[in-house]
Amino acid sequence: MKANLPISDNPRVVIVGGGFGGINVANALADQPYQVVMLDRHNYHTFQPLLYQVATGGLEPDSIAFPLRKMFGKQKNFHFRMTTVNGVDHESKLVHTTLGPIEYDFLVLATGSSTNFFGNEKIEKLSNGMKSVPEALDLRSLILQNFEQTHETDDLSVRDLLMDFVIVGGGPTGVETAGALAELKSHVLPHDYPELDFNLMSIHLVEGGPRLLAGMSDQSSQDALKDLERMGVEVHLNSRVTDFDGEMVRTHDGLELQAATVIWAAGIKGNVPEEGLNKEQIARGNRIKVDVYNRVQGMENVFAIGDLAYMETEDWPNGHPQVAPTAMQMGTQLGKNLKRIAKGASLEKFEYFDKGSMATIGRNKAVLEFRKLHMKGFPAWMGWMFVHIFYLIGFRNKAVVFVNWVWSYFTYDKGTRLIIRPFQRKTYHEEPEKVAEPV
Amino acid sequence: MKANLPISDNPRVVIVGGGFGGINVANALADQPYQVVMLDRHNYHTFQPLLYQVATGGLEPDSIAFPLRKMFGKQKNFHFRMTTVNGVDHESKLVHTTLGPIEYDFLVLATGSSTNFFGNEKIEKLSNGMKSVPEALDLRSLILQNFEQTHETDDLSVRDLLMDFVIVGGGPTGVETAGALAELKSHVLPHDYPELDFNLMSIHLVEGGPRLLAGMSDQSSQDALKDLERMGVEVHLNSRVTDFDGEMVRTHDGLELQAATVIWAAGIKGNVPEEGLNKEQIARGNRIKVDVYNRVQGMENVFAIGDLAYMETEDWPNGHPQVAPTAMQMGTQLGKNLKRIAKGASLEKFEYFDKGSMATIGRNKAVLEFRKLHMKGFPAWMGWMFVHIFYLIGFRNKAVVFVNWVWSYFTYDKGTRLIIRPFQRKTYHEEPEKVAEPV
Repeated sequence: MKANLPISDNPRVVIVGGGFGGINVANALADQPYQVVMLDRHNYHTFQPLLYQVATGGLEPDSIAFPLRKMFGKQKNFHFRMTTVNGVDHESKLVHTTLGPIEYDFLVLATGSSTNFFGNEKIEKLSNGMKSVPEALDLRSLILQNFEQTHETDDLSVRDLLMDFVIVGGGPTGVETAGALAELKSHVLPHDYPELDFNLMSIHLVEGGPRLLAGMSDQSSQDALKDLERMGVEVHLNSRVTDFDGEMVRTHDGLELQAATVIWAAGIKGNVPEEGLNKEQIARGNRIKVDVYNRVQGMENVFAIGDLAYMETEDWPNGHPQVAPTAMQMGTQLGKNLKRIAKGASLEKFEYFDKGSMATIGRNKAVLEFRKLHMKGFPAWMGWMFVHIFYLIGFRNKAVVFVNWVWSYFTYDKGTRLIIRPFQRKTYHEEPEKVAEPV
Repeated sequence: MKANLPISDNPRVVIVGGGFGGINVANALADQPYQVVMLDRHNYHTFQPLLYQVATGGLEPDSIAFPLRKMFGKQKNFHFRMTTVNGVDHESKLVHTTLGPIEYDFLVLATGSSTNFFGNEKIEKLSNGMKSVPEALDLRSLILQNFEQTHETDDLSVRDLLMDFVIVGGGPTGVETAGALAELKSHVLPHDYPELDFNLMSIHLVEGGPRLLAGMSDQSSQDALKDLERMGVEVHLNSRVTDFDGEMVRTHDGLELQAATVIWAAGIKGNVPEEGLNKEQIARGNRIKVDVYNRVQGMENVFAIGDLAYMETEDWPNGHPQVAPTAMQMGTQLGKNLKRIAKGASLEKFEYFDKGSMATIGRNKAVLEFRKLHMKGFPAWMGWMFVHIFYLIGFRNKAVVFVNWVWSYFTYDKGTRLIIRPFQRKTYHEEPEKVAEPV
């Protein structure tokens, strides 16, 4: 197989990944003397901050995904290939893909991150992550299938199990998902399943650290905790999940939480290409070490940005927060630097501009911080919605999401409780100890 | 497994299928002295007339699907179970389901129809139908995957093959799909795939009869044909497809049309439960013979409605048209009759009210007929859109579809060109002739 890219006199920038980082690099290179080649395993950009709303039936997947070819349809130097990258051959300046090798002059690794199960294969198999549209749809199906399945039994303990959820990880994703499930419980599901006793439904949020939303202020953590508890979420702090067998979650401090469904939002790891990078180039969390220009150590003309990049600076000695604004800003700065390279100018350092952070907990409930500004409640919630619609790509998507949110606000309803592709619940069997085979 | 339905003093009406027929029966029985149990293999109602727009990237699936539990959430005597019905045991008044047997006092079979490949297993395996949301999504993925795949080769003949489409069946679905593909070709795909030569893309529409839209007037057939040809669709009338091997479509009159993708819209067959009905009860097209009250011959208190029902009347000696209005009207009438049964009144005959018919070919292009009224062009197109939004269920869906259509109208764009679940192209191997095994 070949990638069949057109021949160009301009140097080729290969961007791996069409997330927030990649699209900002590509954007910056419009009309520049480069051939821009974007590779992604999906043909669309995913607006990851709203995946949890897809998983909980609030938004349709098509409103938070945007076709990459459409995004850059007017950019003449842009080429897209739907493929998976397996490795980088730095010597020969090649990326190895499912379409065969693709040559580059400049390579931008912007493959983001995926769910980190910290090596626990059992939990990985039996719980659900939420880092892509298909994963969010699987979770949506699973949540609804659980409730459908309750009707298959009159054994209350089985019903209870199916109606219990554990969310692991108290960052924005975990908090937002827990809040959304609590709203499903109080406003939506009892209408759909009038035969069920919703006192049986439990929502647990388990966080390893001492507070929720560790990236925000103590005040915001407190506010989020109070809001969630008021909404019926049982929050367990300082607890690390060590095991899940499909029916019971166990923590390092002896907690046992019954649930058929575990949503894992407790960590991410960088999507480093399988081959081509060595251990010295990788930092904690599977991130690629880069200098202040996002250059990968020891590799000429290879850059890493976004969640995948690990850049130590004075202000950020442990790297920058792995959030959308970092990826956007690194993408934009790298785009500028590639323009400077084309002009023969020197590179500019990446400077992170902290845009603050926020999380929504539910209807009229959110926390928002920007420098010394702290907001909560309705104004924070409005701010959260405004920012998300603002950054969402495409007018159609903005309009559809807006319609959905207005509709949900007035009706207390979530529109899209559809099981389109049923999710096949997985099972896990411990590998038997390997016994030396008789010779 | 058990269905665990609540015990009720009222007789139980089991409705199999949540399509246009089933939902109208359930609706009519609100507050009636019945326990209403709806069974469906999906947890949502599908607005089938717009499936082709999902397949061609014009609408998101979530806007044409509506959760059944939500639809009847306020109806206290309504119960839903997501399950598949395998058979009817008329003696014991049971339907056999994947949840186990469910007792009924009255049974309504409203399972609609699926694609009819007329026994050709090879075509069934290699072509794509469009009768459900997952099928429409598979087709959407496949259409887009074809274009992505063109970049894997520089062999023009392979590219050509991937860019060629054959639609089989010149009824409304075939005509609407051909028109939508033609619009993708002229307004959308060339922007997405600037490296491709769109002169290579062919769209063939093959119809076995002498004209398109056989259910409408000659004038409408002519109008649709002219519109499609003007849009670049190659229409082949009086041709019956006899073979497709994954690369070439062959017809009974020797036509050979190259295409990697065949969309089969040439016929439907009733979804009769696998067990419980005998041959005498089944008419042509796998429809269940019913009397003027939609009662299944020889089965007390069992009814069939919609696409599945075959009712011979003076006006309709070959049964009613298998379209949405028939299903809705039969559902409504059966609902009325069940109310009459509850009161001890006699049954009322089903009378079909012909609401006319219509098909859209493209932007500003449609044909619409109601009795002696014939319309085409812009007014017919507006009429078509109005009727479809009117019958679409749920305010949110109406609003989202409306936003999408307005958006598409002004931008000539279709919003949702996403490959969310890639479609695995199937292969077909002829079964080797069975040789008697040695004893």
